[in-house]
This record gives sequence, structure tokens and C-alpha cells, in this order.
Amino acid sequence: MSEASEPTNQPPTEQPEVDGQTGPSKSELKKRAKAAEKEKKAAEKAAKQQELAAQQAAAEADYAAEFYGTLPLHQSQSRPRQPRVDIASLPSRDGETVLLRARIHNSRAQGSKMVFLNLRQRTESVQALMIVAPEKVSKQMVKWAAGLATESIVLVEGVVKKSPEIIKSATVGTVEVEVSKLFLISGVDARLPFTVEDADRTEAEIEASGDQFNRVLLDTRLNNRVIDLRSQTNQAIFKIQAAVGDLFRQFLHSNGFIEIHSPKLQGAATESGASVFKVSYFKGGAFLAQSPQLAKQMAIAADFERVYEIGPVFRAEDSNTLRHLTEFMGLDLEMTIEEHYHEVMEMLDGLFLSIFHGLRDKYQKEIDVVNKQFPAEEFKWREGPEGTLKLSFKEAVDLLVEDGVAREELDDINTENEKRLGRIVRAKYETDYYIIDKFPMELRPFYTMPDPTDPTLSNSYDFFMRGEEILSGAQRIHDPKLLEQQMRGKGIEPESMRGYLDGFRLGCSPHGGGGIGLERVLMLFLKLNNIRRASLFPRDPKRLEP
Amino acid sequence: MSEASEPTNQPPTEQPEVDGQTGPSKSELKKRAKAAEKEKKAAEKAAKQQELAAQQAAAEADYAAEFYGTLPLHQSQSRPRQPRVDIASLPSRDGETVLLRARIHNSRAQGSKMVFLNLRQRTESVQALMIVAPEKVSKQMVKWAAGLATESIVLVEGVVKKSPEIIKSATVGTVEVEVSKLFLISGVDARLPFTVEDADRTEAEIEASGDQFNRVLLDTRLNNRVIDLRSQTNQAIFKIQAAVGDLFRQFLHSNGFIEIHSPKLQGAATESGASVFKVSYFKGGAFLAQSPQLAKQMAIAADFERVYEIGPVFRAEDSNTLRHLTEFMGLDLEMTIEEHYHEVMEMLDGLFLSIFHGLRDKYQKEIDVVNKQFPAEEFKWREGPEGTLKLSFKEAVDLLVEDGVAREELDDINTENEKRLGRIVRAKYETDYYIIDKFPMELRPFYTMPDPTDPTLSNSYDFFMRGEEILSGAQRIHDPKLLEQQMRGKGIEPESMRGYLDGFRLGCSPHGGGGIGLERVLMLFLKLNNIRRASLFPRDPKRLEP
Repeated sequence: MSEASEPTNQPPTEQPEVDGQTGPSKSELKKRAKAAEKEKKAAEKAAKQQELAAQQAAAEADYAAEFYGTLPLHQSQSRPRQPRVDIASLPSRDGETVLLRARIHNSRAQGSKMVFLNLRQRTESVQALMIVAPEKVSKQMVKWAAGLATESIVLVEGVVKKSPEIIKSATVGTVEVEVSKLFLISGVDARLPFTVEDADRTEAEIEASGDQFNRVLLDTRLNNRVIDLRSQTNQAIFKIQAAVGDLFRQFLHSNGFIEIHSPKLQGAATESGASVFKVSYFKGGAFLAQSPQLAKQMAIAADFERVYEIGPVFRAEDSNTLRHLTEFMGLDLEMTIEEHYHEVMEMLDGLFLSIFHGLRDKYQKEIDVVNKQFPAEEFKWREGPEGTLKLSFKEAVDLLVEDGVAREELDDINTENEKRLGRIVRAKYETDYYIIDKFPMELRPFYTMPDPTDPTLSNSYDFFMRGEEILSGAQRIHDPKLLEQQMRGKGIEPESMRGYLDGFRLGCSPHGGGGIGLERVLMLFLKLNNIRRASLFPRDPKRLEP
Repeated sequence: MSEASEPTNQPPTEQPEVDGQTGPSKSELKKRAKAAEKEKKAAEKAAKQQELAAQQAAAEADYAAEFYGTLPLHQSQSRPRQPRVDIASLPSRDGETVLLRARIHNSRAQGSKMVFLNLRQRTESVQALMIVAPEKVSKQMVKWAAGLATESIVLVEGVVKKSPEIIKSATVGTVEVEVSKLFLISGVDARLPFTVEDADRTEAEIEASGDQFNRVLLDTRLNNRVIDLRSQTNQAIFKIQAAVGDLFRQFLHSNGFIEIHSPKLQGAATESGASVFKVSYFKGGAFLAQSPQLAKQMAIAADFERVYEIGPVFRAEDSNTLRHLTEFMGLDLEMTIEEHYHEVMEMLDGLFLSIFHGLRDKYQKEIDVVNKQFPAEEFKWREGPEGTLKLSFKEAVDLLVEDGVAREELDDINTENEKRLGRIVRAKYETDYYIIDKFPMELRPFYTMPDPTDPTLSNSYDFFMRGEEILSGAQRIHDPKLLEQQMRGKGIEPESMRGYLDGFRLGCSPHGGGGIGLERVLMLFLKLNNIRRASLFPRDPKRLEP
């Protein structure tokens, strides 16, 4: 179908001029050129007339010629203001003649007189059919329609009719569209690496087919992300991703937070041992921010009281795992503390519950779509007066020891033990969401506030979903002297973070906060099993494209 | 006041062990060490007792000792759950005893028995006074309060009382707080580079004072941004900045757009001639995205239909002007087109009108605060059926020619002429907001769709506020062949943008969009005169800190 997408309205191309040749005289050359030009024009004219005649003959033979074909390249030639409709609205339009733009999801000709087209708009699809009818739909028209490539974008006019039986292959199954006009808006100019049907097929369907269906591997999907993202599953995943951001903002707005935007280009590599990306910055160098940690703390020192930021964070860690990206979206917040850092922890807990409720109440349809391809036990959390499960680090360790892990291995809880803990907690407390509080000081970054009574502990917490960390946070040190002391303890030269320290020297309220990885929340809520599936165009140590 | 912020609750510091010394025997050393330790402890004990005795004596003399002083470092020691109030709520609390955390904006002792404190929370302030009273407020307490440094953060308990006359030096002028308890939460440990009062002073006030007041220069402000941001003006500016983002999202949500997040790390330097920042990426290299242009177009090719993104964009241009940053917030959107690219232009127009209305209706108070320091003619736009002024590029040129600019200079409209046009338009059409449509093709990037009838023109537009461009947008080329041709015309090798091109080869709807610079909108709406004032922590070729 490559000719189908040929633009019919291309701007003229200029011929390069030829100068300074040796050989025949200039006037001779001019003469010859003129003659050649004349001949060429005559030939072109003849060809054009012939073509025109052929077209006319064809048009006479095809009474439907005006009702189908390739539209000229859409350059906003006109604006008739004809309303176009969504497939989702069709059930309420029985009997109406409608106009709609859609993709051809697939098509099936039945003999030479009928073709079925499955038309798709994002997550919705409907069956359309075109049947030969005198003065309306010609055989040529049906043949042309049947030849349109999968994934072509078409403009369809047709009448909505109740379907004789529910059409299972479409999401809108109660009606179908009887096509009267069909035009190609954008064709397909390449071999499809896989179809959207392939992309949406579940493992169960593939197995049931005896592996006749194409199993599309993740790398193939990511290499051809534009087509992969057209799948129902992906349309749903990214609708839910946007919803998480919206729910995050809504909750924080209603609690008096203000959105800030902090720079990703930093003059100094800071904060933690994790490696940072270096940037060439004019004649010097810069670094990409690993988090908005310092900026949001400075916003607190600047009296913003409660701030949040949604922005990219960059980690130059060469981790090729299922849960690491080199660039991901950080949902960060920071707030002043009046009496106790549990005010922050409870705010974050309220935030997560609000996100979970919001998703369950408003996005169940999308969750179900994703679950078809990624079957998962329903995500559980605790409701009501008992509230979210909160364990101290010590209690978490005890649970693991009870389960058979050697206590010596539990100075820190590694990823494997985190997951094990997730299973223990689910079995014992029936929740996939919980908080671990009071981490050992030595496991946390220098700016973490120590516990008031036991300096080996800290006022810090992690939040977990299905046994994986999705948020890390703490009360921060707002006293510049203690902060300097802790920096030195972790081998950081205070002078290298002068701007940051100065903020606290000018008086700063007690405060705390946390940072959430958007893709992790999405991956774990939906159990996508690989963080790349939760990122539109994921970046890892080996992937910078597309 | 440096001692005021001394943490009283520091974790114990450990003594390093001394090993492997030569000289006296180990046992001898141990003995000596023990003796020394004993002596030291005795001396410490004596000192402690002496100190304690002195404290007791002082406490006996000071009946108010419990009612003031420096709090221990806030490490979340306890949680009495005492409600704390906002200064803004005080007028409705006449007669109540309240507890609040605030900064000391300034203070003034009147003799040894009374001190006035101006307490500040963000944009609100209230007068507090402390008067010596038997059994309640001692002379020592007043002296201590009067000595607290400006910008200290204090916890205040006091009774709200109607003020005998409106207090002009506070934003809440109808009441004052009679202080019964005052504790220091966080002191100031450095010389203030300038006060928040200085930061908020208007040019008119400085001039009226005969330049007695400190005029705080922008560089000084930016070098000490944490204190600069505490000013009323800045608190208002960044409240409005957040509002612009919210209004942007609200309008787009109600028009069916979905938020996306695209990677800032790119495998190839793309899009336009503007220079890009290079990043070291493991063993290879990457580039920082100059805009989400390619990603949002791929999202359209992936059937997302209407997308927006709020994220940082990076420009490695060595432009040290009032309107360029090397990193700024892009508000980007892209949408499919049914009939004509003016659908997009009208959507963007609706978006701006919605932002302007939202700011005027809900943020007039903040706008007024900013106007005090940055006086500006009110931002004007056209309402009602006549709608936003739309000029073609040709009409804009004609206006400038009429005004005396030589036509030869107007192949492009440079910054100076843009501003001139802004003045002409304001005088003639009474609007600071307008659209220029139909730019010459040669002024636009390769992906811009040419006009259907005149290939020297393009389906593209810029939006202006007060004579400066705030949005650039267009219908994009969705046909891969025309796109390749245009790339070659601009000297771009199509193979270098293969992933991008592939998106269109798989079928893509006609589409268009635009990109808005958040800081520019804010700067021009409020007439801040320098884009750095519209960025929390601005980045330019010479500034990467704080």
C-alpha cells in the first residue's frame, strides 16, 4: 500500500542550475536545451492527456469514484466544519449518518462484494461493512477498501445500524457502520513490525493458539514503540499514568501545597553517592540533578511551607534491572513540620490512599484492560480505623527472622528480602501497601534527622507496594551545624554545598518530605513486571531511542 | 545571635582511638589515660554543677524562665497535637489564645519593658507585642525577645486583641498578638545579605527615602535566592507561576488532553539548529532535549490524539539577554487536526484566554502585590465576539512599514521590531495579546507544514504578549516523504532521525501544536522585565547556582 500514502500535493522541486561547463558554445547549448525542453513538454502533455482520458473512462465505469480514494495531503485546504464523532458515541446514534476518522485495525473481504473493516480509535473499536450497491458502492470501491493496509488512517462516512448480534471483535458491539464513503487520510509506508492485535494479545491466547500467534517481545515493542503504544493495554497504562499525576496534584493542592519547578542543571554533583550524569556547559561542566532534594529544601528555607514537584530525575547507575531507569519521573514533596515528622508520614500515607481510591473509583475499566494482558492479584490496602500498616525497621527485621532469614544478613534489607517481606506482610496483614519507619541512621543520606533518643536510628521511612520500595523520605536536618557535621561524617566537604548550607544558616523551619517514582507506582499497582512498560519512551543504560 | 541556633541536642561525638604508638608501655599509657580521664570527668562535673547552680539562681530571679528560650533542636521529640494557626486567620480569633510559628520580620524594643515584633508567614504579617507583667513576662524575657535576629523562626503563644488603630506595617492590621510565650525554633547563623524588607521595597520608596534604603540588585538577590524568595513579591510571583500551570492543565483536561512525560535524554541531537547540551552517557554520549517536539509527535502517531507535557527544556545558546534561560519550563501540547490547523490555533487561543481569565479572577491580590514592586500597565486582551486579534505575517509587516520600518529589513521580524509591533498593536487595537499567522516557510523548522496554495508560506503561527513571543506553533508534516524532503532541504540527514520518521511511516493523523515558555508568560503578564525573576533558581550561561 505504499502508493496510498504518496502525497498528491507536494511542493514543486527546483532543478539545480548547471554552470561553467566546457564543450559546445553557450548559444549552441541554449538552442539544444530549448529544443530538448520543447520535446519534453510535448511528451509530458501527451502523457497527461492520455492519463486524463484513462481516468475519465475509469470514472465513467465506476459510479462510486467520488465516494472513495486517497485524499490529497492534508495541508488544511478547507474547513467545511463537518462534525466528526467518536466510536464510543455510536451506540446512541442508531440510524444517523456519521463521519469519523479512525485506523483500520484489520479488514476481511467476503467475496468481491463485501468487506468488513474493524475501525479503531484508541481503546474503542467498531465493525464497519461495505457492500456493493447500485449507484452507491461499486465493486472497485470494495476492492480498494479491502486493499487498504492495516493501521491506515481513514475518513469514514456511514450509517449507524444496530448489529444483528453483539460483535465480539469490537469494543462497541451493539452497532455497526454501513460505509457509504471511505477516504485514506494517511497510509502505511513501511512493513509493520507487528500488528496492534499482536501487541494486545494475552499470553493465554497465544498459548491456546498453540503458539500460532506472534509473541511480541519487549525489546521489539520498545524498538517500535509508536506502534506498540497504540495497543489497548498501553493506551490504558498511560491513561492511568496521567491519572496518578492528577491524583497526586489534587490531593496536595487540597492540602495547601504549591507546585515548584527546580533546575535539572546543577553546578555541583551533590546529595548522594549515586553517580550523576555530567553535562558540557559552555566552557565548563554541569551535572544533571539526581532529585529535586536540595531545591525543595531551599524552597522550605524560603518559606514556601509546602511544595511539590513533578519532574525528571536522572541516575547514572549502570543497573540493567527490571526496576531501574536512568531517567524517571519524580513526584517529590516537602513540607514544614510543626511537632513531629509523622505529620509528613501521615500526609504521604493520605496521598497514597487518595491515589489508590482515585484509581479504583475512576479507572477500573482501564485497570481491567491492563489486567487482561498482565494478570495480577488485585492490589490490596487496609481501609478504615486500623489504617495503613506501619512497621518499624526492627519489626520488619523480626518478621523476616521469624520467616527464617538469618539476622546477620539484615543490617540492611536487600531487594530479595524486601520482596519476601512483601509476601509475609500480605499473608499476615492482607495488604500490599505498608510503611517501614525508623531506619538505621547509617542506611540514610547525610541530611536525614537522627532519632531524638537513639542516634543510631533516624526519623525516616520507606513506603512499599507489593514488596518494593516506592517512596523514600524523612525528616531533614534543618540545623546547619549538625548538617555540616553529618556531611563530614559521610565524607562530603561542606564547602562544596555552600549554597545549600547557606539556606539553613538564614533560619529554616523543621521539615520533611519524600520522593516517589511515578513509573514504579504504576508498575507495581498494575504489576507490569518491568518498569520499561510504565515509561512512554524508557531510558536505561542501553536504550536512548526512540 | 549565632548562639541562638546552637543545637542543644546534638548526638554524642566519638573519640578516635589511638593505636600503635611508641614510647611508654601500653599498661603505663592505660594508667595515665585513666587518670587523665578521671581528672577530666571531675572537672566536667564541677563545671556542670556550677552551671546548674547559676541557672537555678537565674531561674529563681526570672519568674518567666519557662515562658521563653531556645527550643532543643527539633527532632520530633513529642507530639502534643496543639493546633497552630495562620496569621491570616487572626482577625476572626479576637480574644483567643493562639499558638503560631512565624518569622521575626523585624522588631523594635521600647525601653526595657516592651518589644514590638512584626511576625511574618509568607505574604501575611501581624504585629505582636510583649510587655513586662508580674508572674508572666519578665524584663529578661523582653530583653531576650528584643535580641532575636531578624528572620529567626519562633513559636509564639499569645492572645489576639483588636488593635486600637489599623496597623499599617502589617498585612493583618485589625488585630495584634499580646505575647505570653516565645520560643526560638530556628535562629540565624549568618549575616543577612539583605533583609526581606529591603527585598520588598519599591523603587518609589527607595527614591522617596533619598536612597537611604538599600537597593538590592538582581545578582545579589539571585546569589542569595533563599532569602530573596521570602519577599512578598516573590511569594506572589511563584504562586502565580503555579497558577499558570494549573490553569494550563485544567483547560487541557476539559478538552480531552492527556499528560505525557517524555525523556530529556536523547540519543541524537535533533530538531533545530539551536545548540544542544551534550551529556556523558556511560561509555557513549547523549543530548538534552531542546523540546518535547519529537516525542509529542510520536505520541500522536501512537494515537494519543491530544497530549500535553510540562517539563524542562534545555537550550545551549550563549545568550545573556533579559529573556533567555538555558533551562526553562516548556508547556507543550500537540493534537490531531480534523479539517484545518486553525483548530489548533483556536485551541491555543482558548487556552491563553482561560489562563488570563483565571489569573484575573482568582489571583488579583497576588498580581497587585507584584505590581507594587513592578509597576505595569494592566495586561489587556480582547474579549467578546470580536475575539483575539489575528494578523497574518504579511499584515504584521505592513503595520511596521506604515510605522516607518524599511520593508527590506522585514524578511524576518527581529526582537526590536517585535516590540515595536507590540506598541503599534496596543495603540491601534488596545490589546497586549495577539496572534501572527502564516509565517514564511523559510523562517520555520523543517517539520512545519507548507501552506496548501503558496509554498513560500507555512501553516504556522506565533503568539505574543506585550510585543514578545510566548508561543510558537504550527501544523506539522505527517507525511514521511515530504518530511524527508524538507529535512534534506535544511541539511538534516533523514537517517539521523530514523525513529522519528518511522513513526510517520506507520500512519499518522494530521496534527499540530505549540510550545509555551512558562517563565516568559509569567514575566510578560507581570512585566517583570527580566526572565530570571520568573524562575525559582534561574540558569543562564553564567549561572548554575544556587
